[in-house]
Amino acid sequence: MEETKPLILITNDDGIFAKGLKELVRAVKDLGEIVVVAPDKAQSGKGHSVTLDMPLWYRPSKIDEEIRAFKCSGTPADCIKIALFKVLDRTPDLILSGINHGSNSSINILYSGTMGAAMEGALHHIPSIGFSLLNFAPDSDFTTAGKYAKEITQKVLAMDKTFQKSICLNVNIPYNDPENIKGIKICRQSAGEWKEFFDERYHPSNRRPYYWLTGDYYNYEPQEEDTDEWALKNGYVSVQPVTCDCTDYKMMNELKL
Amino acid sequence: MEETKPLILITNDDGIFAKGLKELVRAVKDLGEIVVVAPDKAQSGKGHSVTLDMPLWYRPSKIDEEIRAFKCSGTPADCIKIALFKVLDRTPDLILSGINHGSNSSINILYSGTMGAAMEGALHHIPSIGFSLLNFAPDSDFTTAGKYAKEITQKVLAMDKTFQKSICLNVNIPYNDPENIKGIKICRQSAGEWKEFFDERYHPSNRRPYYWLTGDYYNYEPQEEDTDEWALKNGYVSVQPVTCDCTDYKMMNELKL
Repeated sequence: MEETKPLILITNDDGIFAKGLKELVRAVKDLGEIVVVAPDKAQSGKGHSVTLDMPLWYRPSKIDEEIRAFKCSGTPADCIKIALFKVLDRTPDLILSGINHGSNSSINILYSGTMGAAMEGALHHIPSIGFSLLNFAPDSDFTTAGKYAKEITQKVLAMDKTFQKSICLNVNIPYNDPENIKGIKICRQSAGEWKEFFDERYHPSNRRPYYWLTGDYYNYEPQEEDTDEWALKNGYVSVQPVTCDCTDYKMMNELKL
Repeated sequence: MEETKPLILITNDDGIFAKGLKELVRAVKDLGEIVVVAPDKAQSGKGHSVTLDMPLWYRPSKIDEEIRAFKCSGTPADCIKIALFKVLDRTPDLILSGINHGSNSSINILYSGTMGAAMEGALHHIPSIGFSLLNFAPDSDFTTAGKYAKEITQKVLAMDKTFQKSICLNVNIPYNDPENIKGIKICRQSAGEWKEFFDERYHPSNRRPYYWLTGDYYNYEPQEEDTDEWALKNGYVSVQPVTCDCTDYKMMNELKL
């Protein structure tokens, strides 16, 4: 009897036509049966948001002749929900999200649609991994990222099934050649802050101001070797194990109301 | 010399015209100088998402004759960013978000625009509190919720300034009369899951299907008295201290890659 291949559900937040998604599919297609359910348009910065005020739709799309792929009108987290409860006829063994164009280290995980999708998978006890490359260019070279995406996916698929259910990983990959990566480092999320700058412009007709959100990131702990920012700056692939429990347990003990 | 009143920034995710926002303003207006920067439309389910693909705008609006108020085209987290870096000329002493129409207990915190705004405040080291009432009706009675919002706000304003900087609270309030509330309980986030149901309908012209996201919530630990779900079911106001650090520290120790 032939063993059933693991079912791997893939999504992203840059949209189904992004290079990073195609490269992720290419990197892992030998590891299982792949189904893609990805947003029909870019969904960067959408975090874990879901669509409640509008209906959703999904339609067949094309990534590669051999892969079942669907584009969906919603956010990355919507894509996971509609995939699990509507598109797929069995529960996936693994969810992959990415490869994102740009970093999702430090507090960027909170804004990340890539990680919103992975965390949605984790809420349903499906091992989930978000991959991000530290380069925003649409035509980035994904050679290194694809190599590590495959390696980490293989390692997670080989894990004990019970342990696997707790796996939710935020993987960030430096934009280096493979030979200039020092290895994989398991990290915590760096503490940092975006100091925002609102770029003011004026509407051509009514002359009213509008603003583009931009900003500069400040790392509060650049020397801490257990953080993702340190790992990335020092040539490692950072892997942050992620929880969906937002409780501050330390504060639970200290707070009196 | 007159002491400067604390500056309290208020937002929500139901939009600037929601009753819950007006009731929150009313409940706390004696406690400081209030400025409202809230979404111009409903933003439920937007989580911590931010607007990167479109510019933002904000305009004066009206809540109450005595209150400076602005409506903003973005998400709740955008409202906090634009308030902190564009609208306000000093850093607020406190950020309040809500009062949300509907619960944000358990995993709903991840989808919550109300809590996205509070967590955005916490990233900038400003004590931040999200309030939610366990009733979705637009004309809900906010008497109990307002009472507890005021009480908790007063207690947080009275805390030591250094300790305050770590305050990010997810407050949920049962829809009971004040005399039927047993008190305030500090809680952790319940583990649970939404089993989704996609309500399928058909476009009137092209007959293609579309789907409304609905679902049923399952509480995995209904007996655990330290959880927010237990507290709410048993007549307490639940207060979850929240962290923006998504690292799973237990998994950090166990994971080998």
